[in-house]
Amino acid sequence: MYDLLKGLTVVEGASFIAGPSCGLYLAQLGARVIRFDQIGGGPDAGRWPAGPKGQSLYWEGLNKGKQSIAIDLARPEGRELAQRIATAGDGLFVTNFPAEGFLSYERLAALRPDLVCLRVMGWADGAPAVDYTINAAVGLPMMTGHPDDLRPVNHVLPAWDLLAGAYAAFALLAADRERAASGRGRELRLALSDLAAATLGNLGQVAEVLLGGRDRPRSGNDLFGAFGRDFTTADGARVMLVAITPRQWTGLVATLGVENAVAALEAELGVSFKSDEGARFTHRERLNPVIAAAVAARPLGELAPLFEGAGVTWSIYRTLHEALGQDDRLFADNPVFANIMHAGGDTYPTPGAPVRILHAPRDPPAPAARLGAHSDEILATLLGLSDGQIARLHDQGIVA
Amino acid sequence: MYDLLKGLTVVEGASFIAGPSCGLYLAQLGARVIRFDQIGGGPDAGRWPAGPKGQSLYWEGLNKGKQSIAIDLARPEGRELAQRIATAGDGLFVTNFPAEGFLSYERLAALRPDLVCLRVMGWADGAPAVDYTINAAVGLPMMTGHPDDLRPVNHVLPAWDLLAGAYAAFALLAADRERAASGRGRELRLALSDLAAATLGNLGQVAEVLLGGRDRPRSGNDLFGAFGRDFTTADGARVMLVAITPRQWTGLVATLGVENAVAALEAELGVSFKSDEGARFTHRERLNPVIAAAVAARPLGELAPLFEGAGVTWSIYRTLHEALGQDDRLFADNPVFANIMHAGGDTYPTPGAPVRILHAPRDPPAPAARLGAHSDEILATLLGLSDGQIARLHDQGIVA
Repeated sequence: MYDLLKGLTVVEGASFIAGPSCGLYLAQLGARVIRFDQIGGGPDAGRWPAGPKGQSLYWEGLNKGKQSIAIDLARPEGRELAQRIATAGDGLFVTNFPAEGFLSYERLAALRPDLVCLRVMGWADGAPAVDYTINAAVGLPMMTGHPDDLRPVNHVLPAWDLLAGAYAAFALLAADRERAASGRGRELRLALSDLAAATLGNLGQVAEVLLGGRDRPRSGNDLFGAFGRDFTTADGARVMLVAITPRQWTGLVATLGVENAVAALEAELGVSFKSDEGARFTHRERLNPVIAAAVAARPLGELAPLFEGAGVTWSIYRTLHEALGQDDRLFADNPVFANIMHAGGDTYPTPGAPVRILHAPRDPPAPAARLGAHSDEILATLLGLSDGQIARLHDQGIVA
Repeated sequence: MYDLLKGLTVVEGASFIAGPSCGLYLAQLGARVIRFDQIGGGPDAGRWPAGPKGQSLYWEGLNKGKQSIAIDLARPEGRELAQRIATAGDGLFVTNFPAEGFLSYERLAALRPDLVCLRVMGWADGAPAVDYTINAAVGLPMMTGHPDDLRPVNHVLPAWDLLAGAYAAFALLAADRERAASGRGRELRLALSDLAAATLGNLGQVAEVLLGGRDRPRSGNDLFGAFGRDFTTADGARVMLVAITPRQWTGLVATLGVENAVAALEAELGVSFKSDEGARFTHRERLNPVIAAAVAARPLGELAPLFEGAGVTWSIYRTLHEALGQDDRLFADNPVFANIMHAGGDTYPTPGAPVRILHAPRDPPAPAARLGAHSDEILATLLGLSDGQIARLHDQGIVA
């Protein structure tokens, strides 16, 4: 944890990945992030993966370092309390609650006109959607997978949710910055549908399909438009090799000792693979076998030091279990991670902020709090309630 | 384009996706983003997809609304100029240049001690990596794809690059905010390797594998830990259906009219699919056929209005070409997009900021500039050079 955002208070009323990861990123850079949940847990409280004690490792992972208050959101008094919390502190609120419900911007702005509210949504029109349905809607599963099997492939990484979380943290700080000058509140709506559509626009894929009049054919594990693919070594290891820049390409060719074969192919085809990255993709059915043969001629133990020595852009394909055991740069020796005990009772390597700030002290990540662990503290410090008022809320079952 | 960040100047010396998308997000919220490139174009100038006129639609997409100066970075005078530009304006610099080269933090901080520099990297130790090699290194391709085919599947979305771009924009604003109070410069390093490792930690997957002692088996298109999969309608359309919350589940079951079959299965298995989302995954080989039969009994034209009416979380699987033609919410009727002419000569729907700021004017997105289109303006306004000095830089071929 770093302290760049020390002194900033953000309230999170959100579930699943996008909103909570926004709050997580803010907390990891030092903000005080207050999360409210339904007493007993919101819809993401039990989300898999689950740990050996039944705890949600997902929930523990996404809510690290936040303060927790548990509220009965089904009752009017609980909803009113959530509204007061959402509008307290610095007036920064991240949510995925419906745009028209009790946490609508109108209702909140009536309590605090300068509120900055960032609302993560599925479809921008309010229709329900999750990462996996948006992904199908924009075409990614039809682009993913091997060309010899035309079934759609859902990728398992919830990329739109994750991107939404990081973008939300950015947009929230941008709006906070503007508000410092203007005093103006804002409702920001970030829909996964807009994010996915805009991203395919930013990558040139919308223009490609519209100007070309058709979809890009599936290219399997071949990296589109340059050189990159999986290859198998003499001892059956699978490696991903990539060469996008001229330097990456010449380095790879020299390391594999295939200069002559590549030059012969260039002469035959009348292209320069070095200067024209697209030619490496266009002629991949001719070029890939040359690389494949060179990789297949040597075991991984011989290739790996060659690749490392020459600065080739490559990786072994690993499972996550293998990654955890084999590459200490990722987890074991990574200063981003620290081994901490969690509320669910287990201790495991836990990431803090993914960014490294040089010469700044990095405190170990804090675990996710037990639900309601900070209820009294939040009611007292954020809303200024008295002990008697807090006790009454407990007695009535409004908070826990 | 919105104006939240109006008045903020950020310099970008970066190629490919992560750094440029950071600059893009900043520009779309109103920052003045100055990008410098090698004269004739950097390593991403020709990156595919290419348009009908040979232009890089990728480059056009990722560099919209930025100002461009072209510099000969191979020469000492050009490198010195780049250093001056990187440290000018508000002292915010985004780059993927090597940590130890002419754009090292030490060299830049010597010119401007309070510089905030955000450096996107491959591996955190400086070893070369791109999205696709990091993805293989952390295990995603081994989790992706159908369980009946154990080849790794590279997903085609450059998710780590995209996440890095949004996170970088967030971290840069956080550091700028802290600097306003402390006056302190910072070097921030954001490595794709750290981002991927931390993300798998945040999602609970690192803990899952370490505490469980083994990898999660591939689950193909089945959403892990709840209900979600692709199903085929009577007329052969493929749809993604998801139910994570109890409400999503009961809505889906009611819409498909499979209450009795589901209740019989619950009685037989001794589970409640409504209250236990994990049971839907555990027993998916029994449960999925019930849903599959109900979906297969009706054509899409009959199912779609049922799903929409009941608020089911679903989508048709589309190709991007189909998405562009069939769902006007994504592109044609989406206020995030505007049809604008680009420097490459083509006009196509182009996204602005993916966030919607209610009641704020949204200006149409600006296209990417021709390389060097703002060279003189940048030299004059950012560095305060005279006409004579600017002319000399042109004469010497240092800028173009």
